[in-house]
Amino acid sequence: MIIKLNLSNNLQPFPIILASSSPRRKQLLEMIDLHFDINPSSVHEDFQINLSPDEFVQYYAKEKSLDIARKYPDHLVIGADTIVVLDGKILGKPKDSNESFAMLKSLSDRTHSVYTGVSLNHINNEISDTFFEKTDVTFIKLTDRTISYYIETYNPLDKAGSYGIQDWFSVNVKKINGCFYNVMGFPLAAFFNHYKRLVTGEW
Amino acid sequence: MIIKLNLSNNLQPFPIILASSSPRRKQLLEMIDLHFDINPSSVHEDFQINLSPDEFVQYYAKEKSLDIARKYPDHLVIGADTIVVLDGKILGKPKDSNESFAMLKSLSDRTHSVYTGVSLNHINNEISDTFFEKTDVTFIKLTDRTISYYIETYNPLDKAGSYGIQDWFSVNVKKINGCFYNVMGFPLAAFFNHYKRLVTGEW
Repeated sequence: MIIKLNLSNNLQPFPIILASSSPRRKQLLEMIDLHFDINPSSVHEDFQINLSPDEFVQYYAKEKSLDIARKYPDHLVIGADTIVVLDGKILGKPKDSNESFAMLKSLSDRTHSVYTGVSLNHINNEISDTFFEKTDVTFIKLTDRTISYYIETYNPLDKAGSYGIQDWFSVNVKKINGCFYNVMGFPLAAFFNHYKRLVTGEW
Repeated sequence: MIIKLNLSNNLQPFPIILASSSPRRKQLLEMIDLHFDINPSSVHEDFQINLSPDEFVQYYAKEKSLDIARKYPDHLVIGADTIVVLDGKILGKPKDSNESFAMLKSLSDRTHSVYTGVSLNHINNEISDTFFEKTDVTFIKLTDRTISYYIETYNPLDKAGSYGIQDWFSVNVKKINGCFYNVMGFPLAAFFNHYKRLVTGEW
């Protein structure tokens, strides 16, 4: 019943680069046994651009991936972009503690959406695949005390929406609907599904 | 706007014991800044017992907590019990690779439920609070190859339902509905909500 196989060789026919400096994305890709180098792209989001949330994350995921893929045309390059959306408005990273406070206050007792775009590009093999994943996250009612404690202790200014679902703030997550890892910044199941089709045809 | 406070002192008025040997529960409780000792209970589940899933996990969470709380009446003791339920049937830990294969095969392309019961007991302070959390988990269609690779590589015989949502198997999770950490074995948000009411009245 149990089939012996060496998945690693099948699944990694060419070298991979992750075009992101996010430690969370690194950790998630390591979790699924892929080997890769990290080479962050220098592309930055322009939040004034007129795109819907799913267009936005796919656009920037692809820009980031291509930025590096052009320099390493024999590598598969993974780009990703994550945003938090409330009432159709994109929340980026807060610029200071007060903006962080206001942002978290606005998410209290409500459901918001996390979008991540992922783009896989291998120039020499003519591979180009871009997709996105959306997850709904519902917070409990957040007291000012809870928000203040979190900002003081965790200083979440480097995070879209001003929280990390994998840190202390998780105590305030009432429920999620969709892929959990997407909220951390990388939709593992969707990625693996696309990836394995690209590299093996089927698996 | 930002309130300074020392949460740690407020939130931990007495010593805490986690009555579980699960490294995942330890990791999750550490994530929310609690300090605790580990003293696993010796209570084992009897899967022949005639209880519904929510009754089952609450019953064993309380048994485990009280087992240790009686020995340390001045500590708050946390007990927990997690099961996987498919079609009303409880899936425990598989006894060997073949049972693991069959179990994962049965979860393919379907939604199952993960129940965790948590019980908090402090004998001297007459605290006793028991609750449960349920999360629905949907897997993509699992090929025999995927299942075999996972069993060969990760040997998931110590896990209820024969998978860990925090390891490689996460690539097969299409979506979850509810608390993610509950699937890892400890519903952090529900726990913290109960805990803070117990120790501070309100927060």
